[in-house]
Amino acid sequence: MHKEYFVGQGKKDGQVLRVKEQRKDRWKAYVHDTISGIAELDYTAMEEMAQHLDQLTKPPGSLGRLEKIAVQLAGITGSIKLQKQRKAVVVMAGDHGVCAEGVSAYPQEVTAQMVLNILDGGAAVNVLARQAGASVYCVDVGVKTEVKHERLLSCNVRRGTRNMAREAAMTLEEAYEAISVGIRIVDHLYQQGYRVLATGEMGIGNTTPSAAILSVLGGLPVIEVVGRGTGIDEEKLRHKAAVIERAIEVNQPDRQDAADVLAKVGGLEIAGLVGVILGAASRRCPVVIDGFISSAAALAAARMAPQSVSYMIASHLSEERGHQKMLDCIGLTPVLHVNMRLGEGTGAALLFPIIDSAAAIVNEMATFDGAGISR
Amino acid sequence: MHKEYFVGQGKKDGQVLRVKEQRKDRWKAYVHDTISGIAELDYTAMEEMAQHLDQLTKPPGSLGRLEKIAVQLAGITGSIKLQKQRKAVVVMAGDHGVCAEGVSAYPQEVTAQMVLNILDGGAAVNVLARQAGASVYCVDVGVKTEVKHERLLSCNVRRGTRNMAREAAMTLEEAYEAISVGIRIVDHLYQQGYRVLATGEMGIGNTTPSAAILSVLGGLPVIEVVGRGTGIDEEKLRHKAAVIERAIEVNQPDRQDAADVLAKVGGLEIAGLVGVILGAASRRCPVVIDGFISSAAALAAARMAPQSVSYMIASHLSEERGHQKMLDCIGLTPVLHVNMRLGEGTGAALLFPIIDSAAAIVNEMATFDGAGISR
Repeated sequence: MHKEYFVGQGKKDGQVLRVKEQRKDRWKAYVHDTISGIAELDYTAMEEMAQHLDQLTKPPGSLGRLEKIAVQLAGITGSIKLQKQRKAVVVMAGDHGVCAEGVSAYPQEVTAQMVLNILDGGAAVNVLARQAGASVYCVDVGVKTEVKHERLLSCNVRRGTRNMAREAAMTLEEAYEAISVGIRIVDHLYQQGYRVLATGEMGIGNTTPSAAILSVLGGLPVIEVVGRGTGIDEEKLRHKAAVIERAIEVNQPDRQDAADVLAKVGGLEIAGLVGVILGAASRRCPVVIDGFISSAAALAAARMAPQSVSYMIASHLSEERGHQKMLDCIGLTPVLHVNMRLGEGTGAALLFPIIDSAAAIVNEMATFDGAGISR
Repeated sequence: MHKEYFVGQGKKDGQVLRVKEQRKDRWKAYVHDTISGIAELDYTAMEEMAQHLDQLTKPPGSLGRLEKIAVQLAGITGSIKLQKQRKAVVVMAGDHGVCAEGVSAYPQEVTAQMVLNILDGGAAVNVLARQAGASVYCVDVGVKTEVKHERLLSCNVRRGTRNMAREAAMTLEEAYEAISVGIRIVDHLYQQGYRVLATGEMGIGNTTPSAAILSVLGGLPVIEVVGRGTGIDEEKLRHKAAVIERAIEVNQPDRQDAADVLAKVGGLEIAGLVGVILGAASRRCPVVIDGFISSAAALAAARMAPQSVSYMIASHLSEERGHQKMLDCIGLTPVLHVNMRLGEGTGAALLFPIIDSAAAIVNEMATFDGAGISR
């Protein structure tokens, strides 16, 4: 169904080729087509799974979240035969014009440097994904400088956002194009056999647009949702809050329209992750949500396509202030309380073994009858 | 140093042979010798690890708990070269005389049935340990009925505790003997190459003595620490609280003496786990603490040997009411918030991948200098 929008889709020299077709609202239409392809969960399979879990040698419900994940996976896949699935973390990378306002502890060139580090397998997300038997795919959806690497998925929509403290970070068309990149990447990975996706990101300065998105879509004061990111001090934190307030004042994003919010005060990699989430949901794949920035994408996705929330699994509660409120807005509960604040998809990768464990419980535990145990 | 207490220690037909020597206070002396063998952590290695972590390509401290675990592992092992270690869950099984008071949702014979289920590999702990590449060892330290299985470690101290609502659950000597069983099992596993231990248990009724231990050692009202165990209703919960209050009233355990508390209102498998924890600490092995019952053992171990806390890693926050207070009393913070209340060591097994991940981060991540990344 999505193919019609593409000319020359495919992989060549490690790059997903860019689309050549030029119809003006094609990305918006593509995204909305994807959204309308997101189905409800299979409630029959969920009920069947719940009954199966109650046959296993444990007090009913005593495996807590593992049982909830098993039921969710049944609803997503439509089956109670859960298999160990191929898993991938999609790391969307982009730069932020708002860095000109001095909102981050790190210089902007670190985005491209870290993209190369991820592509070379040396970043935290690579280590944690390897531990979980998962792959990492890094996508340039909006890095400022040109990055070349044979494993990079090059889908640059523009070289960094504009400075949202002065103007809209992106046009609406650019935002939809970035979302479309995420959807296409999921299609690409799905065709390679991946069935569990996770969100990750790299973008110096990207807690700033994430907090802006939360403030607008959650209807919360900036000061309650802004945090220290990679580690700014109290003074810089107040400055960051003021910059976000200015961005919202200047752009007047429409909180009823998540795409408008994404375009005006979001980021290219955040929009890309919205696409990963929508794409995963439309492909009936669970999508593991990482920390603060990924959750900003999840919040936007939830507003654009409420049904997509059923496909999300929140991995961890970040140290970044505002993350709990963000998850509350979406209606997600984190599994891991590990005080992380790194991003990249690290928390999501750390959740993969728990998903595998939920599937193993379903497949391998003895039943009361089989083991001859009194109820 | 421990050998002198043993005659015929070793494994034969799958059973760890019982000790023949008869000196009266030998178990108490053995336990106290083990406690005096628990060393402080290696602070030099911890400092070195902290410095190493700050060289890695991430904001300082941003991997949160993973970094804390890495530092702890350095302190425990005395090295910053962390290896993927062999891991085992020790499931101590015992029965409880207090079941006569009707405190549990399940009949007492389920203990032995579940022991067989664990030995056959069909219980939740087996599935989760397999997922983590860990072994499960099940120890009969106090099951009421005789259990025979080639993989059972038979170290039965007595066939279930006495009814603590009427008299002391154990004599002090029995409690020390049960603790010694745990120490000996760790010795046995250490010799087989296991370097990460985890606590697990099976014993119908054992949230009752665990709540009693917390109430006495934590100085907390019974009503604040008693929970629903495997799933009793509100009325049975009030009854359970009354039974615990009666047990404390009848036995008058000395809250300054954890061994006295364990003997009077504890359980054989709980005492066995105290031994696992003390043994692991004396062998410089990290020990992962499971849920409510395991934490009751950890609390007793912490009071008997405060230094042992440095070797503990709390795995998850149980749904059992009182678990957070229990962990607070010990000074531990749980990693997983998965609403589990199953025991067996299931939460501890679920934590193993996180320990492996912490080690992998230390060993595999690129450094700022190595990856050419600006600070």
